[in-house]
Amino acid sequence: MSTIRRRPGRRPGSADTRGEILAAARKVFAEKGFDKATVRGIAREAQVDPALVHHYFATKEGMFAAAMQLPITPEVILPVLLDGPREDLGRRLVTLMLTVTGDPATREPMIALIRSAMTHEQARVMFREFISNALLYRVADQLGVPHLRIEAAFAQMFGVMVARHVLCLEPMASAGQDELVELLAPTIQRYFTA
Amino acid sequence: MSTIRRRPGRRPGSADTRGEILAAARKVFAEKGFDKATVRGIAREAQVDPALVHHYFATKEGMFAAAMQLPITPEVILPVLLDGPREDLGRRLVTLMLTVTGDPATREPMIALIRSAMTHEQARVMFREFISNALLYRVADQLGVPHLRIEAAFAQMFGVMVARHVLCLEPMASAGQDELVELLAPTIQRYFTA
Repeated sequence: MSTIRRRPGRRPGSADTRGEILAAARKVFAEKGFDKATVRGIAREAQVDPALVHHYFATKEGMFAAAMQLPITPEVILPVLLDGPREDLGRRLVTLMLTVTGDPATREPMIALIRSAMTHEQARVMFREFISNALLYRVADQLGVPHLRIEAAFAQMFGVMVARHVLCLEPMASAGQDELVELLAPTIQRYFTA
Repeated sequence: MSTIRRRPGRRPGSADTRGEILAAARKVFAEKGFDKATVRGIAREAQVDPALVHHYFATKEGMFAAAMQLPITPEVILPVLLDGPREDLGRRLVTLMLTVTGDPATREPMIALIRSAMTHEQARVMFREFISNALLYRVADQLGVPHLRIEAAFAQMFGVMVARHVLCLEPMASAGQDELVELLAPTIQRYFTA
């Protein structure tokens, strides 16, 4: 008997099991926040076996990112930061962030989540917990950077994304990626190394 | 005959003429944006003589800041930036921003405006025009700093305010002002001088 199976009483073999798990995940994350949501609780909400959830999503972070359609997870960001010389880290991170936010397909879900977090308490808690516990602290601890310094770096890049793609301040909204990397990389580099 | 008078047909001598002008200003700024709103149009909306508007508010920027209860105007920020050595400018600006956003009475109206700008198109246009034309470009031009660089500085401080007071990321939300000045002033200084 397979350990990856649907619960009894549930119609088997739906083509969109993954989509149903993600819908359940969105509901549970919104209700519980990121920290308190569990794979078990999401499986219960989706009426599937927890092993099936694990089959589709290796980690809670990955499930959250998929549920919110976020392109940025620790699994994406850590290799970029760790793979290459430390003194070039600011440039690599800024380039990654500008690339990811430069494409509307990856940018729009991030902006949707930020808009919710700015205006709805539940979304704010969920976003804060994901950003800090799942993303910033993990990156900071892996690199040995104090949490406050990585939050300063986050604040810089968050502000640039909002100025560029939400407020559409000129000339920032139309500035080329190279020019922005030149301008911002030393800031990020300093936060990660000073 | 005084040049500062109410229009005919309007009840004279209301105790809250200033408040009525501000209510009219909020309506006109929301409808027209910051750039296209005029003192004349706001006077018409408030049914008062334009000279009376000028009597209460010297500039359109000042009227906007008062209408939105914003503590930050070019008149507040420019003296802080210009009065003192250039090499200490980053520290003065960060200290001003942290002080203004540290007090809930001055912070809450700013956050309310940012929330609106993130979610409503009219508010976004109004906020963008005020921030760029009335605030950032004027400061940049006065100091001879390229507009892109002052927007990078704005993005850093905007991100810090959101991280600290909207998302409430820790440890940034609880960090002391001195520690944040130490961390952020070199970033702002570089944008203003490099």
